[in-house]
Amino acid sequence: FRGMKRGRLRIAVNSTAKYFAPLALGKFSKQYPEIELGLKISNRETILRRIDQNLDDLYILGQIPTTHVDLEVIPFAPNPLVIIANKQHKLVGKRITLARLAQEPFIMREEGSGIRSTIEKLFSKHQLTINERLSLETNEAIKHCVAGDLGVACVSGHALDVDSSDSHIAKLEVDGFPIQKQWNIVYPSGKTLSVLAREFLQFLQEHGETFISLNMQNTLSKTA
Amino acid sequence: FRGMKRGRLRIAVNSTAKYFAPLALGKFSKQYPEIELGLKISNRETILRRIDQNLDDLYILGQIPTTHVDLEVIPFAPNPLVIIANKQHKLVGKRITLARLAQEPFIMREEGSGIRSTIEKLFSKHQLTINERLSLETNEAIKHCVAGDLGVACVSGHALDVDSSDSHIAKLEVDGFPIQKQWNIVYPSGKTLSVLAREFLQFLQEHGETFISLNMQNTLSKTA
Repeated sequence: FRGMKRGRLRIAVNSTAKYFAPLALGKFSKQYPEIELGLKISNRETILRRIDQNLDDLYILGQIPTTHVDLEVIPFAPNPLVIIANKQHKLVGKRITLARLAQEPFIMREEGSGIRSTIEKLFSKHQLTINERLSLETNEAIKHCVAGDLGVACVSGHALDVDSSDSHIAKLEVDGFPIQKQWNIVYPSGKTLSVLAREFLQFLQEHGETFISLNMQNTLSKTA
Repeated sequence: FRGMKRGRLRIAVNSTAKYFAPLALGKFSKQYPEIELGLKISNRETILRRIDQNLDDLYILGQIPTTHVDLEVIPFAPNPLVIIANKQHKLVGKRITLARLAQEPFIMREEGSGIRSTIEKLFSKHQLTINERLSLETNEAIKHCVAGDLGVACVSGHALDVDSSDSHIAKLEVDGFPIQKQWNIVYPSGKTLSVLAREFLQFLQEHGETFISLNMQNTLSKTA
């Protein structure tokens, strides 16, 4: 393990994973203060490109693409997708259908986002059209727009712990939601992981859900 | 003003402005519920490119580039840059020099960010080298890494109201900080603004600082 002390660990994670991945990485790096860390936080499309180019040791992704067959995929925690609106929104507290939701202006993530493609598939499966008002590249921007009452949106439950503007946000009860996704650790099949990468993989499998749970507790207490 | 009811308003703002711009836009759009909104939230480099391509009606920027001479620049609110660290960090509560700060691992914004270039200039002016540990594309990612105790960072005071992870974050007292910047409304000189754009410009001049102040109050109460 001697080499590990000065090793390099390069992680790339889906943008929503920023709510727990840096905490996990911070905790892990305390054990090995001299390792060189790389952390890339990007949308799904960018992460998939990084996988193709073999730029990092490990990846954290929500949805696994069917186009990338040669991936090792290790699920390690749940990732529920929820619909949010301004707390004063007329639909708060009511159980509604997807068709009713479709009438509301929707604040979407950008092209290439996993959440965007999930919503697009769901609406299209029900022959519904998304009433897209804005398209934004981060969950925070989306939440600030929901707090500003510019529309409804779909975000990971993990994104909800964060803002003080979250006090202006409520979950909507929509048929079919929350959509249950999961968090996965991913790397190309056959890739030999460094000792450090294997250690971090194991650390995430054992403790990853704890870091997420810390967030989720905040979420539940704020939106209950 | 009849045409205004169904007009289009395209705004592009610096990523840190997302903490108040959507709230302002949401409030403004309540007066004109049928206007079509465009909101782009990007880093400084992307905003400057959008200005060159004349893609939006108005822009909100922190620092004004000296390379773009033909801009109308209307300052409307202060934007202080501060240094943050994990609340348990050994430097919390001490008055330190920039040279002392330079010894700490620094979590930087990406190339093209205004805050990054400010820090680079400041360190270089004092013949100091930045001990860059990570480079990340959003203030949230940076704050989560500071909360994870991966290093210190420089962010806009306006970015500090937001996370529940902010409860793990403290401001450091560093000589020369906070750096006093300001928020500006910007558009190309000689551009004819639409009625709607002029209305929003006036709205921001009158009320923009209020939306920012709401955030700053949270900041002060949390980090005092």
